[in-house]
Amino acid sequence: MISKNKISELKKLSQKKFREERGLFVVEGTKSMCDLLASSLPVEELFATEAWTEAHRTELSHVPFTVVTPAELERITALSTPQAVLAVVRTPHFTPADLDFGDALLVLDGIRDPGNLGTILRTADWFGFRQVLCSEECVEWTNPKTVQATMGSFTRVKVVYANLPECLSQPQVQGRIFGTFMQGEPIQNIDFQKNDILVIGNEGKGISPEVAQCVQQRVSVPLASANPSHAESLNASIAAAIVMYEFRR
Amino acid sequence: MISKNKISELKKLSQKKFREERGLFVVEGTKSMCDLLASSLPVEELFATEAWTEAHRTELSHVPFTVVTPAELERITALSTPQAVLAVVRTPHFTPADLDFGDALLVLDGIRDPGNLGTILRTADWFGFRQVLCSEECVEWTNPKTVQATMGSFTRVKVVYANLPECLSQPQVQGRIFGTFMQGEPIQNIDFQKNDILVIGNEGKGISPEVAQCVQQRVSVPLASANPSHAESLNASIAAAIVMYEFRR
Repeated sequence: MISKNKISELKKLSQKKFREERGLFVVEGTKSMCDLLASSLPVEELFATEAWTEAHRTELSHVPFTVVTPAELERITALSTPQAVLAVVRTPHFTPADLDFGDALLVLDGIRDPGNLGTILRTADWFGFRQVLCSEECVEWTNPKTVQATMGSFTRVKVVYANLPECLSQPQVQGRIFGTFMQGEPIQNIDFQKNDILVIGNEGKGISPEVAQCVQQRVSVPLASANPSHAESLNASIAAAIVMYEFRR
Repeated sequence: MISKNKISELKKLSQKKFREERGLFVVEGTKSMCDLLASSLPVEELFATEAWTEAHRTELSHVPFTVVTPAELERITALSTPQAVLAVVRTPHFTPADLDFGDALLVLDGIRDPGNLGTILRTADWFGFRQVLCSEECVEWTNPKTVQATMGSFTRVKVVYANLPECLSQPQVQGRIFGTFMQGEPIQNIDFQKNDILVIGNEGKGISPEVAQCVQQRVSVPLASANPSHAESLNASIAAAIVMYEFRR
């Protein structure tokens, strides 16, 4: 049983403003929950159906939880399809000082679509990118649609928001800075090094002029040859995935 | 000005049932519209704001259109963000007889998410896959969210729906049939040929047992090494993109 007050508080967390004010975000669904409970992220509250708590006793052994009905979950979900479990989590905050410039780094310049950001974090997790640097214009990774699209990878990938030109011009930056553009060296020709930095641009506008100035080499995902009319561009999460694949290839 | 009757008819086209009954689907947004008007797809009706029709006189020179207000477009859109232009298009129907087995073929087994299908068609268009074969369980490519996610590529990629085991066991099939699985030969080790066939499975369940029987070689997108905990899988549209990239590499 959840009080009206609590429902109203939980619903507020679907809005950026309240997530920031409270320093909390919401995680929903079994896959994300199991990854969350296996991580060190601090769970403040957890609501689940009786069936869910019974099926996940081991994972829940060290977490206080409240049993709720599916109807109650429907009232608190931020998603179009309510899940059987929902948790409120304290948002970890990382700064550029948390970045390891000796390791691979993916940089996102203005990714606005929550689903794209979530998919990119999931793919980064697959390809062993443990840190992602986002421009301040990027959607927040705590957006419910982003969290959902990561399929649990938000627990394993460190996301840092910062002013990109400032951050990328620090003396600690060791690797070369590559940026994806429509025109550039085909990525399969690049011999990527462990500490190289990959920059992906906004869905419509690509990499901003200010960030482009930090890019040392422009790269591109080549079109199929012998293809006279074709898609004008790739989805940002697809471009990011292909560059990360080539980086690890 | 659109009549109430017309608004109700247009709204119905956001539902699969009515799209099938009427043999029509809806296209929205400038990018898709420009690609549509440059294609041979038959536009039945087009509704746009005055500003849009003025900015696109050349493209509209051979198409009858109705000028409407943004408020009217808001009433007929199937999308969460209404666009300045909307067209009703007769759905082309392709059968397995329209497939060219001498050319590259992407096969989708149970892609359910409209956005994923749209993104896959856009990526296929980029990598020169002009034909995509879908199982009957796949979401229809005329779904408004799919059309939107293709960013115009629905005008250039032929989508055929069929029973996959039947279709893939026809004597005309020339190339080898590769399927993506969690375990399989790393795709970078495959020397793809022009007429090879690539099968991508459902978002959660992967390739179905019936279709797996048609697959001649299992391939996989390798994880980064030295990555002990990681994403359990890749998004289906990401996996499809990486396999198509490697095919063309």
